[in-house]
Amino acid sequence: MNSISGIRLSKLRTVLADKNLDAILISTPSNLTYLTSYPFEKDDREAFIVITKSKAYCIASPLIKDEIKKLVPNFIFLSPPFSQTIKDVARKDSLKKIGVEADNLTLSEYKSMKMPSTKLIPLILTTLRDVKDKDEIAAIEKACQIGDDAYEYIVKEIRPGMSEKDIAFLLDTFVRQQGTDISFRTIIAFGKNAAIPHHISDDTKLKNKDIILLDFGAKYNNYCSDMSRTIFVGKPTDEEKKAYETVRIAQEKAIEYLSKRHSELDSESQDRSRIKSGMTGVDAKSVDKIAREYIVSQGYPEYPHSLGHSIGIDVHDGFRISPTSENNLIRQMVFSIEPGIYLSQKFGIRIEDIVVLEKNGPRFLTKSPRTLTVI
Amino acid sequence: MNSISGIRLSKLRTVLADKNLDAILISTPSNLTYLTSYPFEKDDREAFIVITKSKAYCIASPLIKDEIKKLVPNFIFLSPPFSQTIKDVARKDSLKKIGVEADNLTLSEYKSMKMPSTKLIPLILTTLRDVKDKDEIAAIEKACQIGDDAYEYIVKEIRPGMSEKDIAFLLDTFVRQQGTDISFRTIIAFGKNAAIPHHISDDTKLKNKDIILLDFGAKYNNYCSDMSRTIFVGKPTDEEKKAYETVRIAQEKAIEYLSKRHSELDSESQDRSRIKSGMTGVDAKSVDKIAREYIVSQGYPEYPHSLGHSIGIDVHDGFRISPTSENNLIRQMVFSIEPGIYLSQKFGIRIEDIVVLEKNGPRFLTKSPRTLTVI
Repeated sequence: MNSISGIRLSKLRTVLADKNLDAILISTPSNLTYLTSYPFEKDDREAFIVITKSKAYCIASPLIKDEIKKLVPNFIFLSPPFSQTIKDVARKDSLKKIGVEADNLTLSEYKSMKMPSTKLIPLILTTLRDVKDKDEIAAIEKACQIGDDAYEYIVKEIRPGMSEKDIAFLLDTFVRQQGTDISFRTIIAFGKNAAIPHHISDDTKLKNKDIILLDFGAKYNNYCSDMSRTIFVGKPTDEEKKAYETVRIAQEKAIEYLSKRHSELDSESQDRSRIKSGMTGVDAKSVDKIAREYIVSQGYPEYPHSLGHSIGIDVHDGFRISPTSENNLIRQMVFSIEPGIYLSQKFGIRIEDIVVLEKNGPRFLTKSPRTLTVI
Repeated sequence: MNSISGIRLSKLRTVLADKNLDAILISTPSNLTYLTSYPFEKDDREAFIVITKSKAYCIASPLIKDEIKKLVPNFIFLSPPFSQTIKDVARKDSLKKIGVEADNLTLSEYKSMKMPSTKLIPLILTTLRDVKDKDEIAAIEKACQIGDDAYEYIVKEIRPGMSEKDIAFLLDTFVRQQGTDISFRTIIAFGKNAAIPHHISDDTKLKNKDIILLDFGAKYNNYCSDMSRTIFVGKPTDEEKKAYETVRIAQEKAIEYLSKRHSELDSESQDRSRIKSGMTGVDAKSVDKIAREYIVSQGYPEYPHSLGHSIGIDVHDGFRISPTSENNLIRQMVFSIEPGIYLSQKFGIRIEDIVVLEKNGPRFLTKSPRTLTVI
């Protein structure tokens, strides 16, 4: 077993002990990747992992088993059918209580795994990957760098007459030429299309005086980046300039606030263990509030999304930074800060960066300029 | 409401009547695409659809709502939070029994949607998209054609010294240059890597005398293609040639059998209505058996996968053609036929084509040559 996998299994065995379970069944593709480093696809159902106090079973389709085995040779490999094999393991190892991933396991799977003498306990494991280790942070940082490089490249390539799809294609190809892949469907939105936060890039042609919203990411070693920039083709109007500056300042204010609160909390040394456990830290919703209220105070509508989200193996990797967030932001968390202004049928602006929270405060992993850019 | 969407809603309303339900909640991304034509991503949770006897509600994230609205303007659009809005609809419209997708809805979602006076009934909708309409078949055919073009292109580009990743990149780029995307992660496997059916393309360099297995697909208007070819760099050995011919003949035999059985059943005119309803048709597992037994009869191990799978919005779109299949193959079904031989640590061979079953029997939608190809 490689050491990373060992440490991550220990994390899950802590959950196992805390919840008084005999085993945990891992079914979410990103959690399977977390434990094995194998690049499962988002809707993959080719493997399940059962972790007991002393063993780690991987039930994998024969189509991919040999490749996973290379990565985690000390797992015990079993063959499908999945539900039957899981039940066999439960019986053989006398597992009375198995935690299952409530946010991932389907009703059909749950039903097919029901056993007379074993309880399936719905578990929420969404915080499992919130705090990143240094290898994860390094991988996200590298993915962000590929994103920055792609942005630098694309800004030089954009010309009036190109379609949204043309630009997305060039950008995606650049990312793939770095030997990696994009982390989600690239959003390129011109003019009023940018007022739809998750617009699907289409055949709209770029005109002079258009606004271009770019939202994209790259992958590196299974980890994602994500960034948004909004740029102007020719001199922006005063209205556009004001909206842009409002978003930029909203992001700056949120990060300044996060930095200040983090440093206050970090200096209260008596809270060290509470900080480490995530029981204290910067209240995520208070960070969202700073950006959201600033934008509203300038006469704009609220952005219809979170200020940010955790990022890692998934682009949306766990917690959100939103008005309803109940989590705290602590060291080694990596997340986006992405306020926006969307004016229906007119234009949209979003600026999104990825930061990692460290001893000295938030550090930008995306480094592309945020100053108003005219091409 | 566009007419396609209307016909598809009717299909679901038949289920509704059959199962004596007041509504069906659609949550599977590919089913959401089927109803709206919006390209939901595989793990999307940005929209749910509730279909009642007389209405179609779409509860969509504000990030994408406006784009879906353009496609299905006559749906009633509502806003998240999803579970709460679904409960509100149930109360307002007095929905007492709502079917939910058991193969997709998670335990958490099910729990959050529980209501005192409404029952949630787990439903299996996997057959919903089995029979394709002519627009769907046309889209798959076009996707297959892009796949054929990509294959023709890549065969000319392959050179010893290239890595699996290099070839995958060229192939993917070609597909994307056609203004579309690949339908799943392209598999390029050299030599013994080809013995792993779903090998992840890596930095292995192509050598003279290698076998190359290519398995890839394109998308067109939300519909997928899928094809596999195995080609030889330089003259194959007798062992390789024999294995290749065995796979090719196994595929041919399966398709001949399918054609013969289909024509027999189709000529029994008294069974017309039973055929149309899928109650009769060619037993899928008998088709798998023909190919599987032929390969074993030649002294090779069984392929560790199905002979084929339905294809459509998803690459694996519903039924399988396998030893445990319980479905029948009828007109307007589109599926792969893909026998293989995998010799661990030596090499692997797979030939995969997409066929549509029509009045006159199976018709190939992929048209690339299947004869032994040496480059």
